[in-house]
Amino acid sequence: MADPRFFFTSPPKSLAELAEIAEARLADGVDPNQRMDDIATLEAAGAKHISFLGNRKYVPVFQASKAGACLVEPAFADKAPAGMAVLLCAKPRRGFARIAAAFHPEQVPSPGIHPSAVIDSTADIGPGCQIEANVVIGPGVTIAAGTRIGANSVVERGVALGENCTIGPNVTLSYCLLGDRVLVAAGAVIGNTGFGYDLDPSGRVKVPHLGRVLIGDDVEIGANATVDRGSGPDTIIGRGTVIDNLVMIAHNVQIGEGCIIAAQNGIAGSARLGNYVTFAGQVGVANHVKVGDGVVAAGQTGITNDVPSGTIIGGTPAMPIRDWRRMVGMQRLMLKKRQGKDDTNE
Amino acid sequence: MADPRFFFTSPPKSLAELAEIAEARLADGVDPNQRMDDIATLEAAGAKHISFLGNRKYVPVFQASKAGACLVEPAFADKAPAGMAVLLCAKPRRGFARIAAAFHPEQVPSPGIHPSAVIDSTADIGPGCQIEANVVIGPGVTIAAGTRIGANSVVERGVALGENCTIGPNVTLSYCLLGDRVLVAAGAVIGNTGFGYDLDPSGRVKVPHLGRVLIGDDVEIGANATVDRGSGPDTIIGRGTVIDNLVMIAHNVQIGEGCIIAAQNGIAGSARLGNYVTFAGQVGVANHVKVGDGVVAAGQTGITNDVPSGTIIGGTPAMPIRDWRRMVGMQRLMLKKRQGKDDTNE
Amino acid sequence: MADPRFFFTSPPKSLAELAEIAEARLADGVDPNQRMDDIATLEAAGAKHISFLGNRKYVPVFQASKAGACLVEPAFADKAPAGMAVLLCAKPRRGFARIAAAFHPEQVPSPGIHPSAVIDSTADIGPGCQIEANVVIGPGVTIAAGTRIGANSVVERGVALGENCTIGPNVTLSYCLLGDRVLVAAGAVIGNTGFGYDLDPSGRVKVPHLGRVLIGDDVEIGANATVDRGSGPDTIIGRGTVIDNLVMIAHNVQIGEGCIIAAQNGIAGSARLGNYVTFAGQVGVANHVKVGDGVVAAGQTGITNDVPSGTIIGGTPAMPIRDWRRMVGMQRLMLKKRQGKDDTNE
Repeated sequence: MADPRFFFTSPPKSLAELAEIAEARLADGVDPNQRMDDIATLEAAGAKHISFLGNRKYVPVFQASKAGACLVEPAFADKAPAGMAVLLCAKPRRGFARIAAAFHPEQVPSPGIHPSAVIDSTADIGPGCQIEANVVIGPGVTIAAGTRIGANSVVERGVALGENCTIGPNVTLSYCLLGDRVLVAAGAVIGNTGFGYDLDPSGRVKVPHLGRVLIGDDVEIGANATVDRGSGPDTIIGRGTVIDNLVMIAHNVQIGEGCIIAAQNGIAGSARLGNYVTFAGQVGVANHVKVGDGVVAAGQTGITNDVPSGTIIGGTPAMPIRDWRRMVGMQRLMLKKRQGKDDTNE
Repeated sequence: MADPRFFFTSPPKSLAELAEIAEARLADGVDPNQRMDDIATLEAAGAKHISFLGNRKYVPVFQASKAGACLVEPAFADKAPAGMAVLLCAKPRRGFARIAAAFHPEQVPSPGIHPSAVIDSTADIGPGCQIEANVVIGPGVTIAAGTRIGANSVVERGVALGENCTIGPNVTLSYCLLGDRVLVAAGAVIGNTGFGYDLDPSGRVKVPHLGRVLIGDDVEIGANATVDRGSGPDTIIGRGTVIDNLVMIAHNVQIGEGCIIAAQNGIAGSARLGNYVTFAGQVGVANHVKVGDGVVAAGQTGITNDVPSGTIIGGTPAMPIRDWRRMVGMQRLMLKKRQGKDDTNE
Repeated sequence: MADPRFFFTSPPKSLAELAEIAEARLADGVDPNQRMDDIATLEAAGAKHISFLGNRKYVPVFQASKAGACLVEPAFADKAPAGMAVLLCAKPRRGFARIAAAFHPEQVPSPGIHPSAVIDSTADIGPGCQIEANVVIGPGVTIAAGTRIGANSVVERGVALGENCTIGPNVTLSYCLLGDRVLVAAGAVIGNTGFGYDLDPSGRVKVPHLGRVLIGDDVEIGANATVDRGSGPDTIIGRGTVIDNLVMIAHNVQIGEGCIIAAQNGIAGSARLGNYVTFAGQVGVANHVKVGDGVVAAGQTGITNDVPSGTIIGGTPAMPIRDWRRMVGMQRLMLKKRQGKDDTNE
């Protein structure tokens, strides 16, 4: 299934191994030594593939599947077609993601520093790092063990990276401290000076940005996203938060742990997001606004005021999503009534 | 007209040559051997310039123009000033674009591989390619004849490019297969892993993205745009589709042929667009939504539900543009009435 | 305060020196020879730090501050705690920004051309320039004195840069002429071909873009922003205008002087902005629209029609912000009334 030009496929695995990877257990009578070659969808799978049933609406597809093995919630196990090896699993989708990763591991890093890389003599690069072609690393940079820096990336003076980070190609890192296992995708820019000026009719004075960007463990930053450094306080992204492509995080922003920030969000200066916040795409947050824990925002929401924890919001300016939906419904109804009148008058 | 620092100007061309390039024909009595030096607008043109009349509202400008020659729809030919050579043309704007390209061809590519490029020994680079300085090309990459890769770009393992592609500087290509004559502008990132996770309170498991990005012939991708690869299925962009700067195309998205996607659009995971779809800037499409053939969306439209073919839409959430305009009008009217009341009460 | 990994701190400065930098004057009895080591906020400052009071609501913090010295408007000077050296200043925030810059100057540029840079023999690079590692500079490029080009950036054929510009890493410059002291942040792309086609059912012809990008003195362009070149006319950005990250400026756009364009704005083709325009984040301007001098737009505003000078606007489509706020208020009121009815009926 996975194109061998791009993906490595590891050797076949026994059902016993697969059950362990997926945190599943074999249904009665399943042969633990039976081997599978790869993953596949229920529709595409053959006798040597393992698949999963993630949702009750796919039960008919499951019943018609030719998959040799399948991860299934216990409640659906008795619907399996004859001959299919059933692995009982509380979270089949999650188990399948783990098995997919086991069959198709990320490229094994090839430790070493490419001879074309330009590395300052005061930089400290840990064991097992992979520094690719044309990477430029400035003075005082520290990179912990097992981290990979993609080709043509630039790591400026003083930056510190934790262990096992993956930095994509064409990335720019400056004025930042990264935790362990941080992923920064291609083209992202971390640590740029913030957009802060003292303005009046006599002209503009740029406020020096003397803060940094602090990025917690397991954070992911998407392709061509930008995270500006703080003006004095730091810009902070909490552990386990994931940020999608083309997102803008402005100076002094603080984002909590485990947040999900979808593509093209813009979080303006000094805004604060709590933990486990989830924003769909193209959301905007005004400066100095505080967003509580667990807030969820629909796509294109415009957040101009503080939002209490646990609220689900939509619209510009943002309101509880129930209100927003009612408002949209009300407006459409009014439009229909008016159109009715217009038609009567025609 | 064109700044010689940046643009090459080819030698003067006869009206016979120019008519052929523009798919025009010379009006009666025009000397086919008369030569023009360059293009110009109707206002700026002199005796050695060819211009065009694209729109009836410019007829007075046309009548006052000093252009030596002009592309004109036959219906306006008799309005030409004395001494102007008229070229009759069904589509003068299009003909003029072709003549402009003939007078100012893109830089002739200088085939060859710059000595600073870092190219894996297993990469296969066709004849007539131009690989610029500091380009990094990974193992197994194939590049067909006549393709140019701009300086400091990175082409990762396994990527395949067709003939006569133009890849700008600082581009990152991975996990993708490109057709012929594809243009990828500076800073774009193609093939990044999608933003897909299996989430629950116990934590996050990243869904491995084992798909690719498939890009058809004659596609254009704008500067700093991002196109993520599929999670298992591929992300697909159909032949002749043009995508502007800073657009986000998420994993598993399928876009048909001949679409026009303006700047800062965001197309979320697994959305599908038909053929000849046209989106103005900053449009958002929610995940799994289906947009039919020929749909046109106004700027900032938020598309949260499927859209039937041929619809013109606007607003968030999207509705037929006629309804959206009526709604905006109705709301403004209500506001005016209320303001009237407020004023009375004051 | 400022992390020494990233920021240089200059030696202590006397209050006389600091007053001169800040355009302040010492209050009666202050010792002009007393020295301060650094800046700090009112809360964090100690006896060797200078701080500022920017806003009357911080007077209590000011009164409790341990700062050795403080920039204060004359009206608040008598509220200073005992022992604090007061510097009287009409604009304390601006004065503080200047002092911050004096204590923490940008890295002194290290003039020179890194040996890994690839520079065409016809390029002309002025004295005191800093050309960093892996920079690629094309034929005919001219760079005036004191300009810095960040690592892995690409400056294409014919580009001209003024004095003391700062170009970040991974930038792409083409078809553009830059004034003095221009700042282009990491990843930005200037001079890409515009998104212009002649379209009809028989196919697409790309309109050649034979214009340039002209950028005035003291302009700033944010990280990963894109500015397309003109199609024939030029794209123009006036003196002193600042543009934030991920902004899209399309072909033929003209922006006046002193404008502030926040992150993720999209300005479509041939739109014109006057002087001193201020746009919050995620604003969109439709093509050919004219925006007058001094216009201010709220975040996410969608500007589809010309806007007279001096207007403050919001909403999509844009309207005067007072109307937009009333409309939002009116809609919320109507929703509340309807909900009241719904509740009564339940």
